[in-house]
Amino acid sequence: MGIIVQKFGGTSVGTVDRIQNVANRVIEEKNRGNDVVVVVSAMGKTTDQLVGMAREISPSPDKREMDMLLTTGEQVTISLLAMALNAKGHPAVSFTGWQAGIKTEAVHGNARIVNIDPGTIQGELNQGKIVIVAGFQGMTEDGSITTLGRGGSDTTAVALAAALKADKCDIYTDVTGVFTSDPRFIKNARKLYSVSYDEMLELANLGAGVLHPRAVEFAKNYGLPLEVRSSLEKEAGTIIEEEVKMEQNLVVRGVAFEDDITRVTILGLPNSMTGLSTIFSALAKNRINVDIIIQSMTEAQTTNLSFSIKNEDLTDTVKVLEKHREQLNYDRIEWESGLAKVSIVGSGMISNPGVAAEMFEVLSANEITVKMVSTSEIKVSAVVENSKMIDAVDALHDAFNLSVSPVKA
Amino acid sequence: MGIIVQKFGGTSVGTVDRIQNVANRVIEEKNRGNDVVVVVSAMGKTTDQLVGMAREISPSPDKREMDMLLTTGEQVTISLLAMALNAKGHPAVSFTGWQAGIKTEAVHGNARIVNIDPGTIQGELNQGKIVIVAGFQGMTEDGSITTLGRGGSDTTAVALAAALKADKCDIYTDVTGVFTSDPRFIKNARKLYSVSYDEMLELANLGAGVLHPRAVEFAKNYGLPLEVRSSLEKEAGTIIEEEVKMEQNLVVRGVAFEDDITRVTILGLPNSMTGLSTIFSALAKNRINVDIIIQSMTEAQTTNLSFSIKNEDLTDTVKVLEKHREQLNYDRIEWESGLAKVSIVGSGMISNPGVAAEMFEVLSANEITVKMVSTSEIKVSAVVENSKMIDAVDALHDAFNLSVSPVKA
Repeated sequence: MGIIVQKFGGTSVGTVDRIQNVANRVIEEKNRGNDVVVVVSAMGKTTDQLVGMAREISPSPDKREMDMLLTTGEQVTISLLAMALNAKGHPAVSFTGWQAGIKTEAVHGNARIVNIDPGTIQGELNQGKIVIVAGFQGMTEDGSITTLGRGGSDTTAVALAAALKADKCDIYTDVTGVFTSDPRFIKNARKLYSVSYDEMLELANLGAGVLHPRAVEFAKNYGLPLEVRSSLEKEAGTIIEEEVKMEQNLVVRGVAFEDDITRVTILGLPNSMTGLSTIFSALAKNRINVDIIIQSMTEAQTTNLSFSIKNEDLTDTVKVLEKHREQLNYDRIEWESGLAKVSIVGSGMISNPGVAAEMFEVLSANEITVKMVSTSEIKVSAVVENSKMIDAVDALHDAFNLSVSPVKA
Repeated sequence: MGIIVQKFGGTSVGTVDRIQNVANRVIEEKNRGNDVVVVVSAMGKTTDQLVGMAREISPSPDKREMDMLLTTGEQVTISLLAMALNAKGHPAVSFTGWQAGIKTEAVHGNARIVNIDPGTIQGELNQGKIVIVAGFQGMTEDGSITTLGRGGSDTTAVALAAALKADKCDIYTDVTGVFTSDPRFIKNARKLYSVSYDEMLELANLGAGVLHPRAVEFAKNYGLPLEVRSSLEKEAGTIIEEEVKMEQNLVVRGVAFEDDITRVTILGLPNSMTGLSTIFSALAKNRINVDIIIQSMTEAQTTNLSFSIKNEDLTDTVKVLEKHREQLNYDRIEWESGLAKVSIVGSGMISNPGVAAEMFEVLSANEITVKMVSTSEIKVSAVVENSKMIDAVDALHDAFNLSVSPVKA
């Protein structure tokens, strides 16, 4: 008997029938004797439709109003799920982000959670109710509605689980767990029985897509076990926790990939101590996420700096750089869009030199040009052309033996 | 220079294009030098769609969750309108009901406004911003989201106008004003230049539909002038205020009608002092609106009581009556659905006896059976069969000279 937080994503609640199915999954958990808190996303493509309407109104709608708009999506889901549970005889009550006590910083579109007051939720749990909370949203100190950015519902679920001292947070999604690569594109991809937080972080950051990195970090900080599992199939999913018991023999645990990347290069940048910090703090202030950064310091007076961003951030990035042109004193900016990032991940890499070399050999043997490289202790990423992305992943997946059946958990 | 509250209904904000049009109307008012507060409803058929989803989940969804669901409709509109205004260079900010300081009683589905704290809105107006507020919604003392029931956005607009001490409240709708009858069904209906609060109250109560009676009452209590006008056409609408200057010569000002009415009859009810109050207080507690009530006390030990309700309340009404069967000690209940109410309204009736008689003559001449009758100082209502409703209205509209062109304002 404890508290379980369940999170159901947009696909899992995409139709009225699926919401009924989710209600049944919730009731199963409740019937095991647990207190259940459910976090849900907006139904199916609702968020995309809302964004579409906003863009019809204005090419760059203001972010406060965008948050006001988008948060309606989850509010619809929570009420429908609460109705479904009540109709099935299981008292349930729904809360928006602000009602659930989720306070965020005063940033629109991508706010971080500052604090959660779990009092209201705990009160309802104590009365035996199932509590449904709108994911992805919170409120600033002065009462404005905010959103947590991409994957925000995962963050809501994990943060609530931490605040409520829950035993476990189950992330229900449209796949049955974490895979060695995305099974929608890579036919040999297979499910992992468990991964460590760090591996999951790299996989999540690298576009594996099943779980948001902020949520994984949150879970790691609180030592909270996560399980990624299917909302439709009953089979066990993938446990994410500190110690990984199985499959330790694999050096590479997964191949992640992400498209729609742009490489921006600043040419003729004077060698100075302050240039880099000026650039990246200006980009950060504008909430532009920079991924790979490459700079080779040379003896010359000037240097070239490259970094990768999402395609969608290109316009803003160029604006920011042009605004600081005088201060930075660079020669010019170039960019290349239509790129993708392919990454191999695995904590076994730490003790296995030569993994990166093997990766480049495989890519080279498949005539795939590497445009940028980035490495960490447990991953190696290569930027390639969008059109070569799936070929690269297939080749790496086979080369690192990920297509072989795993040891059963 | 003053404060103008504008309210735009669901049809006026039914599409992105129409929201742009509303933004233009708002800017016109702002450019006249006024502070503008805009109250909007949900877009077009949004509310109906949300209700449809809820009914798919459960035949009788709980009311708290229904409010949670429905309030998303207006939240979508406010954000899109604020985006549109901002994009046109007019700073605007949107607020949900709870953000706007609208406190209601703790009733779901049909709450009354208890109090409005206009501080937040006034603060934004003082900064020169256009304020957009979600109609139809509020918050209870303990933070639950509530809705104000049918026509709630009108009530929001008028209540805000009163709280802000606004100069005027303009109700923008899909018709150009208040008509002698509903022009969608009665081809000879024509626009009135002004009506008194009381006449409007009768017209609104009787299903004229352009303005909710609660809103009219609110405006009457605060002496707040209302104007009902078109969101698409620029012509002047109908002013609703205490003194009506024009058209005093008309005895009957309008013919209202409303379908989907059920007559419930309780047969064999003992003549007692407490029976009536038991019945109608039990119905009121269940938020069932009773309209016409007919009882003729006789010398007999028992009596029959008839009253009219909306068709949709029939199931609840029968439940309530059966629950109190022992206490009331009646013989049985009967009901007839498929009825409609047709009413003639006009403050000139007070000094014109014989208007009711003329009404019954007209109906009789058209072979329309009158099932129930109700009268007030400024109206006479007759319940007829749904299928005869439009015929009855047409005949009355012509008989009372409403199809003739009015004296120009």
